[in-house]
Amino acid sequence: MNEQHYAAIEAGGTKFRVAVARGRDIVADTTIPTTAPDETLGAAIDFIRSWGDVDAAGIACFGPLDLEPTSPSYGSVTQTPKPGWSNVPVLDAVRSELGIPAAIEVDVGGAALGEWRWGAAQGLRHFIYITVGTGFGAGLFIDGKVHHGMGHPEMGHIALERVPGDDYPGNCPFHGACLEGMAAGPAIGDRWGAPSAELGNRPEVWNLEATYLAQALRTFTYVAAPERILLGGGVMQQDGLIDLVRSKLVNQLNGYTTHDLLRGSVEDYVVAPAFGQDAGLIGAIALAMDAAES
Amino acid sequence: MNEQHYAAIEAGGTKFRVAVARGRDIVADTTIPTTAPDETLGAAIDFIRSWGDVDAAGIACFGPLDLEPTSPSYGSVTQTPKPGWSNVPVLDAVRSELGIPAAIEVDVGGAALGEWRWGAAQGLRHFIYITVGTGFGAGLFIDGKVHHGMGHPEMGHIALERVPGDDYPGNCPFHGACLEGMAAGPAIGDRWGAPSAELGNRPEVWNLEATYLAQALRTFTYVAAPERILLGGGVMQQDGLIDLVRSKLVNQLNGYTTHDLLRGSVEDYVVAPAFGQDAGLIGAIALAMDAAES
Repeated sequence: MNEQHYAAIEAGGTKFRVAVARGRDIVADTTIPTTAPDETLGAAIDFIRSWGDVDAAGIACFGPLDLEPTSPSYGSVTQTPKPGWSNVPVLDAVRSELGIPAAIEVDVGGAALGEWRWGAAQGLRHFIYITVGTGFGAGLFIDGKVHHGMGHPEMGHIALERVPGDDYPGNCPFHGACLEGMAAGPAIGDRWGAPSAELGNRPEVWNLEATYLAQALRTFTYVAAPERILLGGGVMQQDGLIDLVRSKLVNQLNGYTTHDLLRGSVEDYVVAPAFGQDAGLIGAIALAMDAAES
Repeated sequence: MNEQHYAAIEAGGTKFRVAVARGRDIVADTTIPTTAPDETLGAAIDFIRSWGDVDAAGIACFGPLDLEPTSPSYGSVTQTPKPGWSNVPVLDAVRSELGIPAAIEVDVGGAALGEWRWGAAQGLRHFIYITVGTGFGAGLFIDGKVHHGMGHPEMGHIALERVPGDDYPGNCPFHGACLEGMAAGPAIGDRWGAPSAELGNRPEVWNLEATYLAQALRTFTYVAAPERILLGGGVMQQDGLIDLVRSKLVNQLNGYTTHDLLRGSVEDYVVAPAFGQDAGLIGAIALAMDAAES
């Protein structure tokens, strides 16, 4: 039984969730609105200090982050439209203020790590963690670790084949009709003129949504050959949506696959994550454990 | 100086190229048409035997292949439309007939390995090797090795955003207007009514081609975050095409990137492979060397 204490920070664009855990069990937690970096990081650190000594800290942070191990700005947010947050050295701030080992990942990478250690991706070598909510986030896990290359994946920004008859222009400020611009929560609301929570009984909404998501899953499958895709987030709470995505994915692949699992049902291939809205925070605990050990 | 002798087989859909190398230098080679498996593999093995003893063999083979290390059919072609070749145990045949260590990869994976060891991807940890010719082939290299997950990547079959005004339906038998169905050599010929070699002076042909290729490179960049993309194959021999792809890729990314290199010119990001039409055979030599050492 792991009796060490860990600080876990899920640093989001609108709020920070901060927790102290004993082993992987959360013993105290709070939520802090994301305002100016000094203010928000300061409040997070004060909360952790108020609890007492912790052994290590983990941060699952909104991106883009500098995650190149040799970079002088490793662990910083890079360029972001979020006012005040460009070039903020999040990892260094936490590490130096608390004086303990700390590790950082992009939010979805952290969530992937937590799902791999304790959740819906245990025992796998390669998988993708996806959350469809106010944005489209995805973490790529390859060969037992979160993958970064030159920068980190930003899968929400791939191009999509438009469904005939859908004339919604997309709402991504960079790409217009990319995946995030067509299929994340705000795009659904914008296209149909109502928040997605109020569109539950309109099958055409979810049919279109599932078509775009299945198309994205087909692309991820052909590019990265994962063993499983975890598909969660607020949008995926819609009843029956995951099943619709599964059946459309099978149609999209159309039997062209290098693995038999993708020929029939894909119930074991496209699954819900185990930790839902807590995946980032649980992932931050996993990051803290890794920091303590390294 | 490596003085061992290696057999290298590039097993293609229309022809096999077979070579014997001393170190990485080819000392004898031949080309065999791809007919029935027994006949073609038999001729390849006879050629190698005729040369004398070799220490190991490498095979860069058309796919799909079973590359799961624990699978009883590891190293076999799986389901292919190519008559007679489904479930042919290519690796086992070569290994048992020659009685030497042997290794196999999908053709593009083998080519990637050769480019990494001796060519245009030396020193990198993550890159993508692409060949655009009679098909669209791509090998994903992650963390110092060819990536397979559940099956292997088949990047040519991702969905594409159609360019307005392009009403070509695509010629992929599985997906119609996927990347391969819209942008590989046969699609170019089919769309414009002439082989691509005769379309050199029609800028609209290459403008459209570059648009689709750039879109694909954008998708690969956002999904896999490679450090470089090697872009070769017969179609890429068109004068100026690689520059056009580069400039359109920068437009497609539109400044949304987690790495500064992708903000400006991408001349060091999208590059021609070093070995051109020999990449598969050179890769097979690299595979043989690895087989000899393991």
